[in-house]
Amino acid sequence: MLNFNFYNPTHIVFGKDTLDQLNTLVPLNAKVLITYGGGSVKKFGTLENVIKNLPGRKIFEFGGIEPNPQYETLMKAVDIAKKENIDFLLAVGGGSVMDGTKFIALASKYDGDCLNLLTPDFDLAPVDSAIPLGTVVTLPATGSEMNNGAVISHKGLKVPVFSMHTFPKFSILDPTLTFTLPKNQVANGIIDTFIHTVEQYVTYPVDARFQDRTAEGILKTLIEIGKTTIEEPTNYDARANLVWCATMALNGLIGAGVPQDWTTHMIGHEITAMFGVDHGKTLAILQPAIWEVRKEKKREKLIQYAERVWNIEEINNDLKIKQAIEKTRSFFEELGVKTHLSDYGITKDKIDDLILALEKNHRTSLSETGDLSLEISREILEKAL
Amino acid sequence: MLNFNFYNPTHIVFGKDTLDQLNTLVPLNAKVLITYGGGSVKKFGTLENVIKNLPGRKIFEFGGIEPNPQYETLMKAVDIAKKENIDFLLAVGGGSVMDGTKFIALASKYDGDCLNLLTPDFDLAPVDSAIPLGTVVTLPATGSEMNNGAVISHKGLKVPVFSMHTFPKFSILDPTLTFTLPKNQVANGIIDTFIHTVEQYVTYPVDARFQDRTAEGILKTLIEIGKTTIEEPTNYDARANLVWCATMALNGLIGAGVPQDWTTHMIGHEITAMFGVDHGKTLAILQPAIWEVRKEKKREKLIQYAERVWNIEEINNDLKIKQAIEKTRSFFEELGVKTHLSDYGITKDKIDDLILALEKNHRTSLSETGDLSLEISREILEKAL
Repeated sequence: MLNFNFYNPTHIVFGKDTLDQLNTLVPLNAKVLITYGGGSVKKFGTLENVIKNLPGRKIFEFGGIEPNPQYETLMKAVDIAKKENIDFLLAVGGGSVMDGTKFIALASKYDGDCLNLLTPDFDLAPVDSAIPLGTVVTLPATGSEMNNGAVISHKGLKVPVFSMHTFPKFSILDPTLTFTLPKNQVANGIIDTFIHTVEQYVTYPVDARFQDRTAEGILKTLIEIGKTTIEEPTNYDARANLVWCATMALNGLIGAGVPQDWTTHMIGHEITAMFGVDHGKTLAILQPAIWEVRKEKKREKLIQYAERVWNIEEINNDLKIKQAIEKTRSFFEELGVKTHLSDYGITKDKIDDLILALEKNHRTSLSETGDLSLEISREILEKAL
Repeated sequence: MLNFNFYNPTHIVFGKDTLDQLNTLVPLNAKVLITYGGGSVKKFGTLENVIKNLPGRKIFEFGGIEPNPQYETLMKAVDIAKKENIDFLLAVGGGSVMDGTKFIALASKYDGDCLNLLTPDFDLAPVDSAIPLGTVVTLPATGSEMNNGAVISHKGLKVPVFSMHTFPKFSILDPTLTFTLPKNQVANGIIDTFIHTVEQYVTYPVDARFQDRTAEGILKTLIEIGKTTIEEPTNYDARANLVWCATMALNGLIGAGVPQDWTTHMIGHEITAMFGVDHGKTLAILQPAIWEVRKEKKREKLIQYAERVWNIEEINNDLKIKQAIEKTRSFFEELGVKTHLSDYGITKDKIDDLILALEKNHRTSLSETGDLSLEISREILEKAL
């Protein structure tokens, strides 16, 4: 096991009918800026219900945070937060709203050029404080509700933001708030959770048994409940298991003391930035291709993945790996998500552009050991066609 | 899945040679009271190494916190903390030292009768603050390093103490600091961790898949590394896996959203208080007997435990349960821990006294549903002879 630090102070409130806890979680007399996305939280009554549970607070609203939240959009919210002396931010939505709100929290307390808060090399943002924030989660996927990271879009790039001040003070996870999601978004969320898990698991073994088994538990759960929770959106138990797995997959727990890869996310971000393909779909395209190209490097963990997650036994190891990759691809396809670049109209001649974008974004030495060069990224993208 | 709250703000620093991080974790210029137990931390140099890493702080020491820490002992430390205006407590030791230090932290800020801080019915202690505390863990077992609970002994009873102010600010878990432990204490720690896990897992199913699989991961890990880490105390990976499992078994994670039992601990505490049997050993005595008596009530989860933890398949369910209980008992015995009351000289005529003690301590309706009466406790104790 590798040495590690683990710290996660977010208070999770999980379950049915828990929005009324907002009244104890949000400071009394606070000036609260509620942030949200495209309006479905209005349409389905979640926003109204949130506000009803915040009596006595002065409420401001900022809607319209888009998927892959844009720097310019968020800076408009920063103006409001500064002008109105907002002292609490409440994100009501999915990963984009939560990520965007983390940026707003930092930028509202920062006097310099807010572009400095974007740190492509995963450094901590140069800030000493942030407006405290909470979240009400309506889309299980990114894990943003229980971590301190965010991804912000700026000039066609997706750039990370990290700070010790952006852990949500609390996150309310009521699975029933996710019942109205389109199937497509639920499928993306399942895949995002799946890939968060394998990016921290399918690397090389370091004898971290709790972490491995916990990761395997998330993957097996997703395989069990994935199709059900898409087809039966109001099946509470299936959805509750998805919501909790999504949170657990990216809160530091399964990544503590183990190598981490993140190649799939890094290349995926470029595809989203360039072609607007949903984040989850880029991951479904890339993961099988990456494993095919990297199957020798990841051999031991791929065999473990085959045996423990897919119960593939009694065949030789090469075949185990092959079948595990095939089963993974089939799982994504059965969720309704296509797994080839060509399914999204991305052709071979676009690979040069993607490689240039990776280079521009300093993604020239990816993977758990930093050996994944632009040449290997090209090979992966060709395999993913 | 049941509704739940999860909150755990303890910062974990895990790994080899991490004591030097004390210098950033403990506030500069603090007046630090270092608490410890019987002196092994002096003998093996840990205390000296801790102090070396706290330059500039004014250091006070309080040793002699005994196993099952006594109220009277701890009140002596409270006197020192008050007199010297201590502003940070650093527990260096195992569960008893950490638990005792949590009590010291609360009592030093409490003006009333400190007996009020002991809450047999698991209420929160009536306090608004506590001296902040950190821990350096030398014995993996109780999980106290990452939770806010403690058990304090007073007049022959073991009584819980809980507060939102007693989460350690940080805990340093360096597995190498545990290499010098006697085999006996390592075995107790493995069993304590095992039983913490099953008390939150072998209840009744609520479709909480992440929690179940994470619990199963801890149990499987303990079964895999238990004997090795006793026989090869300096095998880093085996010990590191034990240390991390011990922490994860009682930090709220696997108990979130599932029923919890705690019968084994409640009856075990009475055996320890009355006969001085080590906590871990009381658990090893009671768990097989409890499952034998309660196998119908816990039927579904015992079958799941048999199949997933012990890989018992292809026989009927009654036999699965029987074999799982037998295998559990054998596992404890193979760790060198006897599993019958008679092995510790406790005979049938003592059962009346234990039942009286349970009654006196309000332990008359134990279990995940509160249906475990004194009559059933008697049956369990008779089965455990």
